[in-house]
Amino acid sequence: MVQMTKRIITLGEVMMRLSTPGHERFIQTHDYEVQYGGAEANVAASLAYWDQSVAHVCAFPNHDIGKAGIRYLRSAGIDTSFVFLREGRMGLYFFENGSMHRSSKIIYDRFYSAFSLFDGAEVDWASVFDGADWFHWTGITPAISAATAKLCLSAVQAARQYDVKISGDINYRRNLWQYGKSPLDVMPELIRHTDVIIAGLTDLENCLGIQETDYVQACVEAQRQYPTIQYISTTQRESLGSSHNILSGVLWNGRELVSSRSFDMPSIVDRVGGGDAFMAGLIYGLLYKDDAEALNYAVAASVLKHSIPGDANFVTVEEVEHLVKGENVGKLLR
Amino acid sequence: MVQMTKRIITLGEVMMRLSTPGHERFIQTHDYEVQYGGAEANVAASLAYWDQSVAHVCAFPNHDIGKAGIRYLRSAGIDTSFVFLREGRMGLYFFENGSMHRSSKIIYDRFYSAFSLFDGAEVDWASVFDGADWFHWTGITPAISAATAKLCLSAVQAARQYDVKISGDINYRRNLWQYGKSPLDVMPELIRHTDVIIAGLTDLENCLGIQETDYVQACVEAQRQYPTIQYISTTQRESLGSSHNILSGVLWNGRELVSSRSFDMPSIVDRVGGGDAFMAGLIYGLLYKDDAEALNYAVAASVLKHSIPGDANFVTVEEVEHLVKGENVGKLLR
Amino acid sequence: MVQMTKRIITLGEVMMRLSTPGHERFIQTHDYEVQYGGAEANVAASLAYWDQSVAHVCAFPNHDIGKAGIRYLRSAGIDTSFVFLREGRMGLYFFENGSMHRSSKIIYDRFYSAFSLFDGAEVDWASVFDGADWFHWTGITPAISAATAKLCLSAVQAARQYDVKISGDINYRRNLWQYGKSPLDVMPELIRHTDVIIAGLTDLENCLGIQETDYVQACVEAQRQYPTIQYISTTQRESLGSSHNILSGVLWNGRELVSSRSFDMPSIVDRVGGGDAFMAGLIYGLLYKDDAEALNYAVAASVLKHSIPGDANFVTVEEVEHLVKGENVGKLLR
Amino acid sequence: MVQMTKRIITLGEVMMRLSTPGHERFIQTHDYEVQYGGAEANVAASLAYWDQSVAHVCAFPNHDIGKAGIRYLRSAGIDTSFVFLREGRMGLYFFENGSMHRSSKIIYDRFYSAFSLFDGAEVDWASVFDGADWFHWTGITPAISAATAKLCLSAVQAARQYDVKISGDINYRRNLWQYGKSPLDVMPELIRHTDVIIAGLTDLENCLGIQETDYVQACVEAQRQYPTIQYISTTQRESLGSSHNILSGVLWNGRELVSSRSFDMPSIVDRVGGGDAFMAGLIYGLLYKDDAEALNYAVAASVLKHSIPGDANFVTVEEVEHLVKGENVGKLLR
Amino acid sequence: MVQMTKRIITLGEVMMRLSTPGHERFIQTHDYEVQYGGAEANVAASLAYWDQSVAHVCAFPNHDIGKAGIRYLRSAGIDTSFVFLREGRMGLYFFENGSMHRSSKIIYDRFYSAFSLFDGAEVDWASVFDGADWFHWTGITPAISAATAKLCLSAVQAARQYDVKISGDINYRRNLWQYGKSPLDVMPELIRHTDVIIAGLTDLENCLGIQETDYVQACVEAQRQYPTIQYISTTQRESLGSSHNILSGVLWNGRELVSSRSFDMPSIVDRVGGGDAFMAGLIYGLLYKDDAEALNYAVAASVLKHSIPGDANFVTVEEVEHLVKGENVGKLLR
Amino acid sequence: MVQMTKRIITLGEVMMRLSTPGHERFIQTHDYEVQYGGAEANVAASLAYWDQSVAHVCAFPNHDIGKAGIRYLRSAGIDTSFVFLREGRMGLYFFENGSMHRSSKIIYDRFYSAFSLFDGAEVDWASVFDGADWFHWTGITPAISAATAKLCLSAVQAARQYDVKISGDINYRRNLWQYGKSPLDVMPELIRHTDVIIAGLTDLENCLGIQETDYVQACVEAQRQYPTIQYISTTQRESLGSSHNILSGVLWNGRELVSSRSFDMPSIVDRVGGGDAFMAGLIYGLLYKDDAEALNYAVAASVLKHSIPGDANFVTVEEVEHLVKGENVGKLLR
Repeated sequence: MVQMTKRIITLGEVMMRLSTPGHERFIQTHDYEVQYGGAEANVAASLAYWDQSVAHVCAFPNHDIGKAGIRYLRSAGIDTSFVFLREGRMGLYFFENGSMHRSSKIIYDRFYSAFSLFDGAEVDWASVFDGADWFHWTGITPAISAATAKLCLSAVQAARQYDVKISGDINYRRNLWQYGKSPLDVMPELIRHTDVIIAGLTDLENCLGIQETDYVQACVEAQRQYPTIQYISTTQRESLGSSHNILSGVLWNGRELVSSRSFDMPSIVDRVGGGDAFMAGLIYGLLYKDDAEALNYAVAASVLKHSIPGDANFVTVEEVEHLVKGENVGKLLR
Repeated sequence: MVQMTKRIITLGEVMMRLSTPGHERFIQTHDYEVQYGGAEANVAASLAYWDQSVAHVCAFPNHDIGKAGIRYLRSAGIDTSFVFLREGRMGLYFFENGSMHRSSKIIYDRFYSAFSLFDGAEVDWASVFDGADWFHWTGITPAISAATAKLCLSAVQAARQYDVKISGDINYRRNLWQYGKSPLDVMPELIRHTDVIIAGLTDLENCLGIQETDYVQACVEAQRQYPTIQYISTTQRESLGSSHNILSGVLWNGRELVSSRSFDMPSIVDRVGGGDAFMAGLIYGLLYKDDAEALNYAVAASVLKHSIPGDANFVTVEEVEHLVKGENVGKLLR
Repeated sequence: MVQMTKRIITLGEVMMRLSTPGHERFIQTHDYEVQYGGAEANVAASLAYWDQSVAHVCAFPNHDIGKAGIRYLRSAGIDTSFVFLREGRMGLYFFENGSMHRSSKIIYDRFYSAFSLFDGAEVDWASVFDGADWFHWTGITPAISAATAKLCLSAVQAARQYDVKISGDINYRRNLWQYGKSPLDVMPELIRHTDVIIAGLTDLENCLGIQETDYVQACVEAQRQYPTIQYISTTQRESLGSSHNILSGVLWNGRELVSSRSFDMPSIVDRVGGGDAFMAGLIYGLLYKDDAEALNYAVAASVLKHSIPGDANFVTVEEVEHLVKGENVGKLLR
Repeated sequence: MVQMTKRIITLGEVMMRLSTPGHERFIQTHDYEVQYGGAEANVAASLAYWDQSVAHVCAFPNHDIGKAGIRYLRSAGIDTSFVFLREGRMGLYFFENGSMHRSSKIIYDRFYSAFSLFDGAEVDWASVFDGADWFHWTGITPAISAATAKLCLSAVQAARQYDVKISGDINYRRNLWQYGKSPLDVMPELIRHTDVIIAGLTDLENCLGIQETDYVQACVEAQRQYPTIQYISTTQRESLGSSHNILSGVLWNGRELVSSRSFDMPSIVDRVGGGDAFMAGLIYGLLYKDDAEALNYAVAASVLKHSIPGDANFVTVEEVEHLVKGENVGKLLR
Repeated sequence: MVQMTKRIITLGEVMMRLSTPGHERFIQTHDYEVQYGGAEANVAASLAYWDQSVAHVCAFPNHDIGKAGIRYLRSAGIDTSFVFLREGRMGLYFFENGSMHRSSKIIYDRFYSAFSLFDGAEVDWASVFDGADWFHWTGITPAISAATAKLCLSAVQAARQYDVKISGDINYRRNLWQYGKSPLDVMPELIRHTDVIIAGLTDLENCLGIQETDYVQACVEAQRQYPTIQYISTTQRESLGSSHNILSGVLWNGRELVSSRSFDMPSIVDRVGGGDAFMAGLIYGLLYKDDAEALNYAVAASVLKHSIPGDANFVTVEEVEHLVKGENVGKLLR
Repeated sequence: MVQMTKRIITLGEVMMRLSTPGHERFIQTHDYEVQYGGAEANVAASLAYWDQSVAHVCAFPNHDIGKAGIRYLRSAGIDTSFVFLREGRMGLYFFENGSMHRSSKIIYDRFYSAFSLFDGAEVDWASVFDGADWFHWTGITPAISAATAKLCLSAVQAARQYDVKISGDINYRRNLWQYGKSPLDVMPELIRHTDVIIAGLTDLENCLGIQETDYVQACVEAQRQYPTIQYISTTQRESLGSSHNILSGVLWNGRELVSSRSFDMPSIVDRVGGGDAFMAGLIYGLLYKDDAEALNYAVAASVLKHSIPGDANFVTVEEVEHLVKGENVGKLLR
């Protein structure tokens, strides 16, 4: 089969996700369902499911549970040639799924994980980026530890050096950044090499110091300060409750702010990974479509993610495109 | 207890249904829940649950999984005297339950099933229809294979011969009809003996060649060409998403088009078998009620089916009648 | 840690709850999930979860399943010093969770339970109420049997004697009261000692003989006849379907009828225990807050209960207060 | 198909069985698996699985859980024409599966069950025994209540009147017999009509007052006092632990004591119903085989039961006969 | 009820245990079953199940998963007045259950747990030991961190000061002791205050420096060096495979080496906590029985533990005593 | 890391395996557990788990369930570059796990599978065997259909052409070979290119026409007729019951018959794939070890497989080697 295929590299921690069944709370559960996820690996999983050639760079502990993480990546069709087995723990996160007025809740348990100790010194970046078309990182990696901040910077610099297109999801999380650096110490240097960023106004303020209240103004200013940036995008989520959100997205392409259609999601199954599904959709879209199509593809991919349990977005390109066109939506397909 | 009871015969394939748990997709599941179903057996299960005397005619493979199919029919209170154990596979269907914009999906796996090879040559139709009040078939049976088309025609002719009232759910499915015949080759002869049909405009066009765009006109024309037809009915389903449909029904009785109330179904549990629940309700209604009551009973039965996992509609006559009257709807009954 | 803590005593039957998984009906289930509950123990569980010192008075059968009931109470942090192991059965209730137009359903199986045979003759009430601030009972206990009616009256009289504040949830259930007494024979004497009651118009009529059609008038009349009453409160529930209710509450404090905000609950997970969550919230509110705050706290607690499987309301004071203030509602909390 | 088929009637309570998963104890379980069973219905299920025509006589409560009991009987291919829906509870039993030195444990919860209140006054015995070849009862029924003792006697007398062969499993249980009668008050009259009994020395002593220490002597004496008896049989079980038993059986045919081979069962899955599987095997054997074959068939059927979860013995005649002959034992059959 | 009850204090980390279902390996599991355990809390759970008054001292993280740990302790009837909510992680351990030649496997994940950071500075030992009869610690606590070594020493010294009998399970684990101290730096001071120790030859060598090859000689020497020691005991386990062990125990009482009967365990359900069940049995035995009875009770308790899933030993005193006497072993108890 | 790694190619059908939980029979199950397997893919999975570079050649249907098969292969670390999506069904097999005297049972459902229709015409064998060290096939592939017989022959011929070492597991199954050819028509040509075969006396007779009764004689004769053969090996399994087997193996190397140690397996978890685990062990052994070591490694690998649910053998090289040496067998590893 002749297929359009790009080579995409992603970098970031993969955690074992332990979810309570149904809508049980942590306090009452007797079982945890095992899944795996991480912002960047979720992007990788989407792109591999869409038949792209994807390799993920990360580290796991050298025991059976770490190896189960590798097994997950492989099952998703992700190249694990650049996954390392190292000292440290398996990063975990515990998830309980809210409903209506009760929020969903994540307890992270990633302290001292193998990934957090991984500075990438032994990574052969030339080999990683050989033949690569795109590199994707997020603001979580530099927020975890000094080691992973170093890892992220090495990767971004190498990708730039090998002329690989770079996307970064700024993804500012206040609870991280515990190792003595602030986002403003670290993020600007990373963004300085990046072509496509996902950032809302808060992200732009906290990580790049851009203090605009209008999104277009903020985008203009970000591009002025960081001239490599070609695209800035973000999703807009209105939460009417844990199980009911409204989702849309915007994409600044340097000339205009493209807006997507807005989707009502009244019976959300699992919203974790919704942003990563958008990111994957945007990368796919920017590789193969025009700007408006790319944005609509990204939002539709994200919307479909909300109907699927787990972090990963198991929807095909055809399914996303059907939703973009409004075809077969919610029918029983035989 | 003195109970009103009719003898009803149904004919059709019973498949093992393998459903992913919750809203999992095929690609991610580690377990399949086992249920059984088939359009006609679903009708049989409803009618038996409503204390009618029901026998189902079909064939299963002669091994433990085929026998588990018989066990299911028996559990539903269906007379299995006319179930045959034969060569061939167990027909299967795989089901994943969508949510919101993501469609529910069925993968049929019924090729070379014991039923598909079953032409009914050895069926003693006199014995089958002894004491019977009603016979029900659907357009799926003649669509499966030449053998089952022959089976269906034998049954319809025998029912007619023994003066049994006949209903047929036309149920046109494009993916079937792979054995060299088109619906127009086969269906007219079957309808020619049938008293009550379920058919929408597309069904009437594809299976009877009636090319009207107005439903009443189409009904009039159908009755003109097929004078045994006394009733034509169909449900109307608006899909706002996999988990949110609006349902109503109409019934043409030769004089007027009776319309039911419309029901909003915002949190569908399982829509498979919804049409069969309607069919069962209509048969029950036409046996015991007037036309408008029959239609309302049928629609209410179908609506309740959407709240129950599996193909079968485990609701009592009382529960259906409560919904028709709007009593106790959604209360906590202690 | 310095914590505000009150000593609260509750009295009532604790049943083992056997729930079908998901939305399965009784007729089709192959598994029952085990939980425990009872109107008063549900109140106890909420208050203990909010770090109050709570003891529950009841009886279980003297075998492993009865002891599993004790284990549940202990897990909830409830003092079981006044739980007795006695002759009789374990009270059970079977629960199936409806959806949309299909009602949820409870089948009680509490006949001849250890609790129903328990008249409390050997209870040392002085010890029970030593240091207690509040005592809570419901109209279920006097409705079960002559023995438990006697038990309830002894408890109420003792609580009054030791100057403990008393609340009673009238909770009139027609299916109970099978032992030869009517509510009007028994309830008035109990209410005569009670400070806070939960009662709707039907409860007031059936249990106190107050025949007013206006709630405020009924409250005024109830206070006239039963001068110990300081507060009368009730929830108002509009059922749009099993999975969609609208909830609010009112509180009569002798001067005015305070009304809460109304909450839309479109995706109910489990409504059992919703009233008990309100009751617990009201007790907590009346102990620590002003009247309007108490009512709002009670309603918000009840709303959150509807998102949690099982009888018990596993939400923290902070979560309830966030909902009262409209903060973090339905967000993903990391 | 021409099949050898006899008509067999069984009588007795069917309980819902609630089993903890795996080897969990009652105190720790969060789920109960639902099965159904009862000594006589287990016999019925075996015989129906062996393609005999079997009807079971009993009563269930008139609600969905009682109806689920009927559904179970039907799934087993048992004729439920003589099952009644009546006042009273569903009889339950809770089961935890031991291992090694830890005993398996049953907690019965059958007090005030619909069956216990059922004296059979409205049963049309002529219709029940029309065409019947065999009737089977056990000593549990007369032990439950005065009503069921009356029921059992009516059935035995009617069977005798209609010349039906009768078997009775004496099955003495000390914990029953709580209604004021002792076995010696009731059992002799029942045995006086019975042709085949299952009884060990203790059963013979407690229920018939036969005080012999040698089994053959006891059999001779039993036949002397109860001349209708043609066969007396019993299993012999050596318990090396919960999961390891050794099983054999003996059959007294009035002339000699036939002994079966002894089977080592080192990894028992579920021993409940083992005796009933033997009883069913013996009935089948006595209907179709000679004495020694009958006993061997009965023991082999019982041995296979120990490998199957639940009360019912889902093994075919062929599987039992293979074990009798020592063929295919423990192989992987493809 | 008048019951013999002693007050027992235990100290140690409680971990959440995540077990794969059945015999699945870590690499293949999709679910983890949640239990809780820790060597000392397992002892506490046994003793509380035997109606002793038990309080456990430990620390959990201050979030819902830590609180679920408290909930577990409470469910077991353990007094949690001395449980602290602190900074740090929840200690975890992952468990896969082997079979035959495949070993069972534990992966500990307790680094930086709340307990490991807990030096007990704020514990009010006077209050902890008020009314206490016994204090139990193990060699795991001083092996975790300098903080917990300090905690353990404080506890032992305080117990000694308040004249509480002290037991210590030496439980030498090579993989712990990572914080810069060796057992010989720390254990002697702890043993110097201890009355009853569990220790095999390796434990005595590694933790006390006693280099004898004969157990009795080693015991004599241990008592010579540590004159507070009154009893030294250990289990002897022969592993014929993961699911088949032979267990016995010995007890040195200063005069003679008492030996228990040996138990064959051919179908082990879960061997984790087997040693702790022995320890609990020994404490119970030494409190209420003579030396030989105490040892037999301890071994029988441990044997029964091997039949129960999870860390805790849910067997009653009566069940243990039945096994000691060889009564009812492996029977079906109704 | 420098690792010894060989390139190994395997060819054969991968089926979805649907297993009943625990020891449930097909007739009673409500759930099927999903795994994947096939004789050759099981070999591939072992070798990939042992860090070899393995590619599997097969075909799946072009839908989500077929893709789930690919996902499984990828999760196992198997290169899926030569997996094709084609017309046809997903091959299935249903599995019930016996116990003691009750046999385990497989119902195959592979008729008209995508693999059975796959003749490999479009496979680029040069690319498949590029850099390959070993090719493995079994006698199942030529037994399925004329198409797959052609596929197998093409593969064997190509492997020979590219000088790849070839192993074949003769694996004669009477129920296959339904397409008009007998094994003797097809197998000799395949064996003519093969270096290592797994064959017992029956296999040698049925597939190669060698009619010797002594295994060594048969091996000598096979080598005489098929001079490429270097090794002939087989396992010897004594079945004491479904859960209790004794296993050993022999290896003929052209000079002598090497025998392995015999292993007692009294508590088998899952014996499916036991032979494939042996085959994988033998390939690994012959690549890296001497003959006796290879055989012992193969048998030990197979023994460990019997402790693991599913077709695949999730044991490490270290675990196998520990069993060969008798180290750590059945211990609790922390």
